[in-house]
Amino acid sequence: MGARFTVTYRLFARSREDARARAEGIALEQTVEVPRDVVSPGYVEDEILGRVTGLEAEPDGATWLARISYSSDAVGNELTQYINVIFGNSSIQKGIKVVGIEPGAEMERRFPGARFGASGIRALTGRQSGGFVCPVIKPQGSDTAHFARLCHATARAGADIVKEDHGLANQPAAPFRDRIPACADAVARANAERQARGDTTRALYFPSILGHGDRVREDAFFAKEAGADGVLIIPGILGFDTMNRLAQDEGFGLPIMAHPAHLGPYVLSPDTGYSHGMMFGTMMRIAGADISVFPNHGGRFGFSEAECAGIVADCRDGNGPGRPILPSPGGGMSMDRLPDMMRLYGPDCVYLLGGSLLRYGDRIGDAIRDMRAALDTGA
Amino acid sequence: MGARFTVTYRLFARSREDARARAEGIALEQTVEVPRDVVSPGYVEDEILGRVTGLEAEPDGATWLARISYSSDAVGNELTQYINVIFGNSSIQKGIKVVGIEPGAEMERRFPGARFGASGIRALTGRQSGGFVCPVIKPQGSDTAHFARLCHATARAGADIVKEDHGLANQPAAPFRDRIPACADAVARANAERQARGDTTRALYFPSILGHGDRVREDAFFAKEAGADGVLIIPGILGFDTMNRLAQDEGFGLPIMAHPAHLGPYVLSPDTGYSHGMMFGTMMRIAGADISVFPNHGGRFGFSEAECAGIVADCRDGNGPGRPILPSPGGGMSMDRLPDMMRLYGPDCVYLLGGSLLRYGDRIGDAIRDMRAALDTGA
Repeated sequence: MGARFTVTYRLFARSREDARARAEGIALEQTVEVPRDVVSPGYVEDEILGRVTGLEAEPDGATWLARISYSSDAVGNELTQYINVIFGNSSIQKGIKVVGIEPGAEMERRFPGARFGASGIRALTGRQSGGFVCPVIKPQGSDTAHFARLCHATARAGADIVKEDHGLANQPAAPFRDRIPACADAVARANAERQARGDTTRALYFPSILGHGDRVREDAFFAKEAGADGVLIIPGILGFDTMNRLAQDEGFGLPIMAHPAHLGPYVLSPDTGYSHGMMFGTMMRIAGADISVFPNHGGRFGFSEAECAGIVADCRDGNGPGRPILPSPGGGMSMDRLPDMMRLYGPDCVYLLGGSLLRYGDRIGDAIRDMRAALDTGA
Repeated sequence: MGARFTVTYRLFARSREDARARAEGIALEQTVEVPRDVVSPGYVEDEILGRVTGLEAEPDGATWLARISYSSDAVGNELTQYINVIFGNSSIQKGIKVVGIEPGAEMERRFPGARFGASGIRALTGRQSGGFVCPVIKPQGSDTAHFARLCHATARAGADIVKEDHGLANQPAAPFRDRIPACADAVARANAERQARGDTTRALYFPSILGHGDRVREDAFFAKEAGADGVLIIPGILGFDTMNRLAQDEGFGLPIMAHPAHLGPYVLSPDTGYSHGMMFGTMMRIAGADISVFPNHGGRFGFSEAECAGIVADCRDGNGPGRPILPSPGGGMSMDRLPDMMRLYGPDCVYLLGGSLLRYGDRIGDAIRDMRAALDTGA
C-alpha cells in the first residue's frame, strides 16, 4: 500500500451537492478514469481511486474547496505522472482550480524540491543581506560578443545573478555553444575584479537552456563545464519533469531559475488552471526550482498585487514542499518602481532588471550600482 | 537572413489604436523583449524584431486579428524556441489568443509534422474505409495480466487501435517494462488470430509513454522493440518538443497519438491561450502527432460542438502544416452517442471507447463488434 498525498481544488458549483458530485468526479477522473460502477473492488477501489476527504464552502457562496487524497502508488517515481494525477484530465473541465497540495513525507522524499533554495542562493552569492540584483542579458539577435560585454559590465558593477533572456536559445546569431563559454568567462573575469577590490560577493551566471528537451541535461552539463553557476529553465515549454530531473541530478548540482513563459493560461482565468501561488510557488518548489520568475503587478502583465503576494507566500512557506525558494518579480521593472516592490517583496527576492537596463548604454554599470544602493538603503 | 513565418493572434482591445499598440507590443515581447526605443538598429531591428503585417477587426467589434511575422532566425531548429516565439511571454498577458499560423516553407522543412498522418494510419491498419475503433485499456491500478487480457480481447474482436489509458505510467501495480511486452504480445496473438480467419485488417498497440522526460526516447524504443505499433504521448506534461523529437526520429518511425491531459487551461478561457483548433489541430500537427485526442462535446468536458468542429477542421486542413491527421474524440463516449458523433466527425476519425467498455465484462469483444458494425452501417 502506498502513502497518501492530498490536493485541494477550488470548485465552482451550484450547490453543495453539485460540489460533492464534482469532487467525486475528480477523484475518478484523476485516477481510474472509469465510471464509479465499474471500479474494480480490492486494490483499485481501496488504494488507487482518489478519496474526497473534505469539502468546505468558501465565503463567496459560489465556490467550494475540495480535498482529494491520492495514493503514491498512482504516481510512481516520475513527476510527469505526479502532475497527471494532480490535474491531467481535470484541467480540461471548467470550474476547477488547483489551489494547494500536501505531499506528505513519501512524496516529499520522491520530490524533495530545491537543492539550494533561498538560503543556498544567498550563500552562493555571498550577499549576506538585502535583495538580489539580477540584470537580464538581451536582446535576442545580438551576437555573442554583445552578450559577453553585458555580462562583464553588469557582473563587475555588482550584479548578484546575471541571467540570460529566456528567448536566448540556439539561434544562428549567438549559438548556445559559442555564447555560454564567452559569457561565463566574462562573468568570471568580473568576479576576479570584484575579488581584487575586496568585494566578498560574487555574480552567478545563469544561461538559458532552451534546446531540445532530450538534450537539456547535455546542454546543462556543457554550461556547467563552461563555468555557468546555474541555469534558466522554462518548465512551461520543456516540462516540469525536465527541470526536476536537473534539480535531482547529484552530478549537476547547480541552482535552477524557472521562467514563466508559456504558463500564463494556467493562472489567468479565475476558474481554470492553478492559483498563482500554486503554480509559481508550490509547483516550482516541487519541481526543484530555487528561484521562480513571475511578472510583477502593474507592469505589462495582468497579475494583481494580491496574486503576486500569493506567489511570494507560497515560495516562502516554511511548511514546504522542500526548501523555501526566492521569488523573482520582473516584467517591465524600472528604478522608480523599486521602493513599491521592496515593500511587497522584501529582501529575500531576486529583483530582475530587464529591457530598461539597455537605456543606460555604456553606463550600464550605473544601473546595477543604483539598484544595489536602493536595495541597501531601503529607498 | 532567415525566412519568415506568421502567427495570427485574436486581440481583445478597446479600439483599433489599442489593438495596434497591443500587436506592436507582442512583436516586441515575443522577440527582443526590450522597449521599442532600445531595439538595436541593423539585424536585430530589421530581422529579429517581429513585424505586424495585418490588423483586421472581427465582426463582434471587440476583437481584432493581428498577423505578426517572425524570422526563422529568431527560432533556430528547436520546437522549444518555436513555441517560445509563438506565445512564450505573451501567454501571460490577458486578452491574447493564438488562432493561426502560416509556417512557410522553411519552418515546414524544420518541422515537417506527422510521419504517417490520416492516410498513413489507414494503411497501417489495413482499414480501407470507415471510422477507427479504439478501445482504451484501463483502469490504472490493475496488474499487467488484466491489461494484457483487455488488449487481446479487444484486438481479437476487431479493434483498429488498442490504446492504453494515459494514466498508465510506471506504477508498481504494472511497471512499464513488464506491461508493454505483455500487452504487445497479446495484441500480436490477436492479430495472428484475425489473420487466420481471413481478416485483412490488424490492430495497432499504442502504449502510454509517461516516464521521465529525458527517458522518453529510451522508453519509446523499448516499446518498439517489444512490438508496440505506436505510442501515446502527453505533450502538455512532457512538452511538445519531446513528442516532436520522436516524430522526427528516423530510427523510431512509429506513429504518435497525442493526449490532451494538462492542456485544458490553454483553451478553456475565451481570451487567453490558443483556439481549440490551433491547439488540438495545428499545434499537434506541427509537433508531429498522427492522431489528436480531445474531449467530445456534450460529455463531462466543456467543449462545444463548434469548438470540436474547429479541431476537426484544423486536423484535416489540406494546406498544412504537414500531413492531415486524425481527430480522436473521447471523454465519456457511449454507443448511443455514436450516430451523432459520426455526423460530426465522419469516417476519418479515431473513435475512443473508454470506461464504459468495462461494463461489458467478459463480453468486451461485443462492444468492439457493435461499434464496428455501427461505424460500417452508418447507424
